[in-house]
Amino acid sequence: MNGLPPTLRELVESGPMAHLSTINPDGSPQVTVIWIGPDGDDLVSGHMSWYTKLRNLDQDPRAVLSFDAPRAPGIFMSQYAVVHARATIQPTDDAWDLLNRLAKVYISPDAEFLAPKGPGYTVRYSVQYSVQRIGGVGPWAPASR
Amino acid sequence: MNGLPPTLRELVESGPMAHLSTINPDGSPQVTVIWIGPDGDDLVSGHMSWYTKLRNLDQDPRAVLSFDAPRAPGIFMSQYAVVHARATIQPTDDAWDLLNRLAKVYISPDAEFLAPKGPGYTVRYSVQYSVQRIGGVGPWAPASR
Repeated sequence: MNGLPPTLRELVESGPMAHLSTINPDGSPQVTVIWIGPDGDDLVSGHMSWYTKLRNLDQDPRAVLSFDAPRAPGIFMSQYAVVHARATIQPTDDAWDLLNRLAKVYISPDAEFLAPKGPGYTVRYSVQYSVQRIGGVGPWAPASR
Repeated sequence: MNGLPPTLRELVESGPMAHLSTINPDGSPQVTVIWIGPDGDDLVSGHMSWYTKLRNLDQDPRAVLSFDAPRAPGIFMSQYAVVHARATIQPTDDAWDLLNRLAKVYISPDAEFLAPKGPGYTVRYSVQYSVQRIGGVGPWAPASR
């Protein structure tokens, strides 16, 4: 499919905590909650170490990113997005800039990312999520699920 | 482990949208977002049909429930919980009462669950989640992750 519907891009740009589901070597589900941002038609995340989620994605790139839309009291079905994606891990020294950009969304407009910057420092991987399928409840989801 | 730490129970009782991760037959992750409630030392959910998530849990009971704590602006690491659990599905006519109870948490204190009530009607399954391990960021998570 072709990238992000505008409504979903808007939701991503508002900084929802993204639940990243991957598969452990024993076939069980693994979940961590991360920052994400849009990157062209893809989504992207930055990471400081070779965490379990990265090891899992390296073995099996099938990932799901799910996140809540803002809650509205009195609404029967709260909106949320479920993004099925194919993940590509990139070792990089540029992920600090990504996380510093996301810090302004996720923490506050004047926040700086705390980890030290530069080659050999702690921000070392970015993950690119190529969107395969979008579900959930909201204008970004197909009517029948 | 023995059930829910008080801080986690409190978070569950506040009605966070719970991201339920299961495993598809092809080994890929499946995620839907559901209502949950505490039930003694377990968590519980109610369902109206034999959805994919139930089919998956029937094949492989290893489930992860993850949910955000309320966001606080200016905080570096938002709090969230990741609950690894073993799921048991129960066909039941009582799940309506569960969903009606959860509607008061998730919709509004005077909300009634919308689906019709009674035997043969649409609320037919409850899932019991026996907690195996708790992670995430917050007072419910072990210090080292």
